[in-house]
Amino acid sequence: MEKTRGREHFESLYKKNLELTKKQVKESVNEDSFIAHAIGNVGELDKAINLLSKRLREWYALYNPEMERETGEHEKLVQAVLENKGKREKNSMGAEISSGDLSQIMLLAGQIKELYDLRKKHESYLEEIMKKHCPNMLEVAGVLISAKLLEHAGSLRRLMMMPASTIQILGAEKALFRHLKTGKKAKPPKYGILSQHPLIGKVKKEEYGKVARTLADKISIAVKVDYFKGKFIGDKLKEELEKKFQ
Amino acid sequence: MEKTRGREHFESLYKKNLELTKKQVKESVNEDSFIAHAIGNVGELDKAINLLSKRLREWYALYNPEMERETGEHEKLVQAVLENKGKREKNSMGAEISSGDLSQIMLLAGQIKELYDLRKKHESYLEEIMKKHCPNMLEVAGVLISAKLLEHAGSLRRLMMMPASTIQILGAEKALFRHLKTGKKAKPPKYGILSQHPLIGKVKKEEYGKVARTLADKISIAVKVDYFKGKFIGDKLKEELEKKFQ
Repeated sequence: MEKTRGREHFESLYKKNLELTKKQVKESVNEDSFIAHAIGNVGELDKAINLLSKRLREWYALYNPEMERETGEHEKLVQAVLENKGKREKNSMGAEISSGDLSQIMLLAGQIKELYDLRKKHESYLEEIMKKHCPNMLEVAGVLISAKLLEHAGSLRRLMMMPASTIQILGAEKALFRHLKTGKKAKPPKYGILSQHPLIGKVKKEEYGKVARTLADKISIAVKVDYFKGKFIGDKLKEELEKKFQ
Repeated sequence: MEKTRGREHFESLYKKNLELTKKQVKESVNEDSFIAHAIGNVGELDKAINLLSKRLREWYALYNPEMERETGEHEKLVQAVLENKGKREKNSMGAEISSGDLSQIMLLAGQIKELYDLRKKHESYLEEIMKKHCPNMLEVAGVLISAKLLEHAGSLRRLMMMPASTIQILGAEKALFRHLKTGKKAKPPKYGILSQHPLIGKVKKEEYGKVARTLADKISIAVKVDYFKGKFIGDKLKEELEKKFQ
């Protein structure tokens, strides 16, 4: 009798424990996970687009080498191939190819265009979540950088706990460790993910480090406000930043 | 007077030469190029599909981890995600996610499906060209292997000039040079591209080398007949091959 009661007790404990664990697993997923996957997939899409676009270039050049050479960016070439359909210059050096051969190339171009479209949809989706999740960081750093910082840190909480100097070089771990390992012979990195910020493109090379440092400071403040659900001060932070580097 | 005539002469020569070169460039493109690009793109599509499918797996598992675990092959998972739409087990461990979050995942699944579809279209396209270009090899080796052999060799002409022993290990250059460099300590490769032939999967491991050798012999014959536009003997070659390994 004692034994059965013991077993029953154990079984009910086991069941409850399982339920609790399931619940915790269920609730462990939050905006951070969605943001990390969406931005991760933007990176994956970029790789796929690049891979397929290079092939499109070579393949299409058999038919219309003049246009392939003129069009530099992948996205523009895809657009041009799709709009141009079968047309080309009269005295083109390209081969005479059957409509069946051309159709495979057109299908590929259409596919690449859809990958670009999906990338854009991911971007607007990211913007939408981040407007609620971290509006201040979004304002200061923009969609892609904010998302990459979150992906890299793992969560808003962890990003919030990082000092500004860590945020500054997030994504440049390789360069940082090269600096530390070579007895500081290699220079320390100025920035990692932040290098993609438009402000970096606007200033002189000597100011890169300064911009990155100030940008990281502002992002660090923005993230803290976001995590503790403070007021929206993103516009002020952005203004201060822009004033400093005019 | 003499000078102008010389210049005129040169200019007309230059023009004619340019035209001739353009014509030659135009005519240098043939089936071999189309086959190489189409099979090359099949490879690129495989890479892209793999990249995006891995992401789909992790992303979808937030919502429906049970189904993700059950479904092994990427293509089946994509199908299941698309057919299942938003449904899942009642007591799933997956998170409650908004329709907005789910829609991004569904878009990704849809995109991967289209990449699979394009891959299939490339395959039927390849089969169609090769029916005219090299029907005998197509019969003996199948679409994908024939196309890869052609891509690797560069053209039907070059493939035709290779001895059967070269065809046998085409695509296993790394293993071959490892064998030669290490003073034959590393074993020579048994096969390269041919490893994907269905016959290899049917025999015992001890017979792999023998099958590959016989297969390469038959392909070598088939390619020669194809190049010189001989009669169709692919079915006979295939029959001989299959009889030998029953």
